[in-house]
Amino acid sequence: MTEKEKRDKGELYNVMEDNQLLEEMRKAKLLCYEYNNITPEKMNERVEFIKRILGSTGKNIQIESNFYCDYGYNTHVGENFYMNHNCVILDVARVEFGDNVFIGPNCGFYTAGHPLDIETRNKGLEYGKPIKIGNNVWIGGNVVVLPGVTIGDNVTIGAGSVVTKDIPSNTVAHGNPCKIVKNI
Amino acid sequence: MTEKEKRDKGELYNVMEDNQLLEEMRKAKLLCYEYNNITPEKMNERVEFIKRILGSTGKNIQIESNFYCDYGYNTHVGENFYMNHNCVILDVARVEFGDNVFIGPNCGFYTAGHPLDIETRNKGLEYGKPIKIGNNVWIGGNVVVLPGVTIGDNVTIGAGSVVTKDIPSNTVAHGNPCKIVKNI
Amino acid sequence: MTEKEKRDKGELYNVMEDNQLLEEMRKAKLLCYEYNNITPEKMNERVEFIKRILGSTGKNIQIESNFYCDYGYNTHVGENFYMNHNCVILDVARVEFGDNVFIGPNCGFYTAGHPLDIETRNKGLEYGKPIKIGNNVWIGGNVVVLPGVTIGDNVTIGAGSVVTKDIPSNTVAHGNPCKIVKNI
Repeated sequence: MTEKEKRDKGELYNVMEDNQLLEEMRKAKLLCYEYNNITPEKMNERVEFIKRILGSTGKNIQIESNFYCDYGYNTHVGENFYMNHNCVILDVARVEFGDNVFIGPNCGFYTAGHPLDIETRNKGLEYGKPIKIGNNVWIGGNVVVLPGVTIGDNVTIGAGSVVTKDIPSNTVAHGNPCKIVKNI
Repeated sequence: MTEKEKRDKGELYNVMEDNQLLEEMRKAKLLCYEYNNITPEKMNERVEFIKRILGSTGKNIQIESNFYCDYGYNTHVGENFYMNHNCVILDVARVEFGDNVFIGPNCGFYTAGHPLDIETRNKGLEYGKPIKIGNNVWIGGNVVVLPGVTIGDNVTIGAGSVVTKDIPSNTVAHGNPCKIVKNI
Repeated sequence: MTEKEKRDKGELYNVMEDNQLLEEMRKAKLLCYEYNNITPEKMNERVEFIKRILGSTGKNIQIESNFYCDYGYNTHVGENFYMNHNCVILDVARVEFGDNVFIGPNCGFYTAGHPLDIETRNKGLEYGKPIKIGNNVWIGGNVVVLPGVTIGDNVTIGAGSVVTKDIPSNTVAHGNPCKIVKNI
């Protein structure tokens, strides 16, 4: 298996030993850099550009600068997507957002993890676990979503939350760690 | 009532149906973009420029890049104001800072909220509640202040706090959610 | 003593009254600005440039944009250093990272503090306390490390943590405030 194939199976992989991955990452970082330098008034150009970066999107999408991702093609976005300033998606594994998802500023969606074992970690081995966000989800500002987390439909995540475990549909949740506070 | 008038009364409004609001927001986003691209050595130019973005300021004001706000004119700042890097003010409602306010990096002041009801939220309806920060306040890095919150005079908010409720004068407070830990 | 000498002794100092400090800070802010504007594809240029900003580094270092620091020369980095997007180092005091340190996005390392006493604070007096991070440390995204904190060797700090106190070697820790959850 190539390192990329290992990555896509959720196994430990070393990005430094896979020229294709390095090239894909460099390309995504460059595209984000260019995207972040398009002035906010060129709204149509920004929409077209962000659609080139991400794996799939709906028609209606707005992502404020600065936005960063690792690969872009692993991030899939439904219809009516809004992401505020300074968000980061580490999409070494698949990141999926449903329809009608609104995200506050300074949020992080991190599929990437490193082994706790020092020797393995220092070799540069890492892994990715997919993140899935359902439909009709509002995520407040400064929220972190960790590798492997699924958030259901019709969910509100309060600002400043650290989402370490799955959050079921039809709930309001917040805190560090993020816990359900209401069913709706 | 126009959507802007609804917004200013704290009622649900739809920014997409108000061309004036959209235009004001675009203008503020463009000004922030331009501000963030002024090199740090042009200190006087930066001061003059930020005074054009915000509703009112004192003489002595410094805001490090990148800085983002929604409208700018809703943000009012007293004398001796320092805001560190990567702060975001969502000022759909009034945001008021007193004199001698120091703010760490990566902070968010979010007056904007969305309804918990899915159908209403998905129509694009949102609301704003004012934030007020008193005099002589130090807010540590990575702090989030939520819609409707008032922080009194002579207050220190510890780094990483999520301020969900009012914090009275003459206190030190921290945590998620932010709670008083000391009276001074 | 000059204000810089006071700063370096960990005493209260006033940056506005020390032209050398102001000049050093301006220079560092300008270098960060220039660094953040080097496109991600110019990887070698970025490495050489960041080595000019920081006090000392190993050969292998990568810091994603936007990166900000106060002085740069107070930040010392070991071999194999990776820091993800949107990190801020307020290095008014020494900040030291060991070998094999990996840092997630949106992290803050803040050596700078202000007095709780209002009158003293409003005069512009502040202080710095050094931060030290050991070897083989992985710090997750959106982590804040406060003034004076030492993190030992072989440590993992979970995403979203606020590290207010020392964390000993061979541990996993997380939370706000950050606490040990496992010995390794």
